[in-house]
Amino acid sequence: MYKYNSEELYEYTVEKLRGVGVELEEIAEIVQELQKPYIPDLSLDRCLESVKSVISKRESIHAILTGLAIDEMCEKNLLDEPLQSIIYDDEGLYGIDEILPLGIINMYGTIGLTNFGYLDKKKIGVIDELDKKKRTDKVTTFADDLIAAIAAAAAARIAHSNQK
Amino acid sequence: MYKYNSEELYEYTVEKLRGVGVELEEIAEIVQELQKPYIPDLSLDRCLESVKSVISKRESIHAILTGLAIDEMCEKNLLDEPLQSIIYDDEGLYGIDEILPLGIINMYGTIGLTNFGYLDKKKIGVIDELDKKKRTDKVTTFADDLIAAIAAAAAARIAHSNQK
Amino acid sequence: MYKYNSEELYEYTVEKLRGVGVELEEIAEIVQELQKPYIPDLSLDRCLESVKSVISKRESIHAILTGLAIDEMCEKNLLDEPLQSIIYDDEGLYGIDEILPLGIINMYGTIGLTNFGYLDKKKIGVIDELDKKKRTDKVTTFADDLIAAIAAAAAARIAHSNQK
Amino acid sequence: MYKYNSEELYEYTVEKLRGVGVELEEIAEIVQELQKPYIPDLSLDRCLESVKSVISKRESIHAILTGLAIDEMCEKNLLDEPLQSIIYDDEGLYGIDEILPLGIINMYGTIGLTNFGYLDKKKIGVIDELDKKKRTDKVTTFADDLIAAIAAAAAARIAHSNQK
Repeated sequence: MYKYNSEELYEYTVEKLRGVGVELEEIAEIVQELQKPYIPDLSLDRCLESVKSVISKRESIHAILTGLAIDEMCEKNLLDEPLQSIIYDDEGLYGIDEILPLGIINMYGTIGLTNFGYLDKKKIGVIDELDKKKRTDKVTTFADDLIAAIAAAAAARIAHSNQK
Repeated sequence: MYKYNSEELYEYTVEKLRGVGVELEEIAEIVQELQKPYIPDLSLDRCLESVKSVISKRESIHAILTGLAIDEMCEKNLLDEPLQSIIYDDEGLYGIDEILPLGIINMYGTIGLTNFGYLDKKKIGVIDELDKKKRTDKVTTFADDLIAAIAAAAAARIAHSNQK
Repeated sequence: MYKYNSEELYEYTVEKLRGVGVELEEIAEIVQELQKPYIPDLSLDRCLESVKSVISKRESIHAILTGLAIDEMCEKNLLDEPLQSIIYDDEGLYGIDEILPLGIINMYGTIGLTNFGYLDKKKIGVIDELDKKKRTDKVTTFADDLIAAIAAAAAARIAHSNQK
Repeated sequence: MYKYNSEELYEYTVEKLRGVGVELEEIAEIVQELQKPYIPDLSLDRCLESVKSVISKRESIHAILTGLAIDEMCEKNLLDEPLQSIIYDDEGLYGIDEILPLGIINMYGTIGLTNFGYLDKKKIGVIDELDKKKRTDKVTTFADDLIAAIAAAAAARIAHSNQK
């Protein structure tokens, strides 16, 4: 029915994230920091496993590939004005970069949502690095919010399974 | 502070909608049909005024321009695989075309949300026309959902002001 | 850690739904009608299995028990004015009865959301029956929206598993 | 059409908030702290005006009155088990106390959403005080999230008007 199977889509998505300089281990580190107050001995391995589980969902893959494609189009200067400037400058009121990740976090309940809001303000680890690249040549308008969403969702997933 | 003022953004957005073959009057007709059961004598003029109000909001402009840009990139075959195929085929599980319009409808309360869900299933008027274009050469994966969102929001706006 | 285990919570929730006159089989019938256009030979058994899966999630249980408790408090005239009147009359702008079920449907992607919006307008089967009880002595302000959300989520769940 | 006009509903809602020990000025202080990094000279008066504007919306009034009513029912031990225990203990997976405020924050775009997620983790000012009351006799399961939502929405409202 589909041209690509789930494994191909997953591999492709991990590759695309690597293309913007993000390794899954770096996302796992954010997850660990988010959950540390609740599970002090949480291993990085379990965080990484949760990140992989989030990314393997088709809804996540669609959100990640779409957001990164918009960043890429903008970086190649292929968008029409005024959208080209709005995304390039990551205008304060743009907001679509925070709407699109809802496709990922909504699936993980309200803990995902509040984690996402927190990470959006407190840019931890690789999210902060992506955000700083904006001041150079890279367009990371969607990338940093997508990473925040993956980490928020993976942390929520651990919180849920831990409380059960 | 911004390169474009609100009026320029509005005019540009209306022009982009016209570019995919949609006139504001056609969206107003959907609004009228949605609200007919509640306000039998609702004029097309009032519906049109509500459509214009929705589109003039920066959140709406951002969602519309972003969604139509993705359709356009896809139509020009500029996206990488597998995203190019996924959006071109408007795959049943894609879903981002329904996430992005949340940027518009969330602002108009739950009536906006339920109107949107209804229109997504019962493709009325120009939404149906856009949907049928998919079987030809045009990519309207985001366009039809964005029109549904504008109509749903404009109808919710009338419902709210009418009950006050 | 918790006073009640998952099975107890599930049984209690099914009992509460029965208390407002709703059997799981009736929700399964709505699911079947929603999915008929896409899976013509979908069995009622598979729909019932999906309904049970949705209701067994803790997020669903919390939403259902909370909504039905508000209806009950209102029916017993225990709420203060003005809330007592607003919920008793199911005022057109109340909206919280459609917000609360988001706790259920958000977990099932955008198909859940659009199904919910559709059911909110086209009251099918037992949803319509619950809605009509409003004109008698029963308070079903939250009940009908919760049933719509369970059916919408169960149908989305089938749509997802079928396309994979 | 309605039994209560907007002014009566507003006054009643402010009174209910006072009933759980929250003055609008305390919410305004949270707004000021949220916006300080972006608008260093933001006056408390402007924050208070924004808080009042948020609370005067019917969607906010409905969410606030409903959430506080549930807290009250629980405090009076009027809810059936298991819901009585779940809300009284403010169980980690409960989540409905974060779903209900979406009725307020969704109207203020994604800035409202991310502010809310942030406040949910960093309990500032009166939110922290409400949260601590949980360890005494008061039930504030919904109250603290509602206050966070009002503050998040009021701050988003200022952010929007400031950038225009």
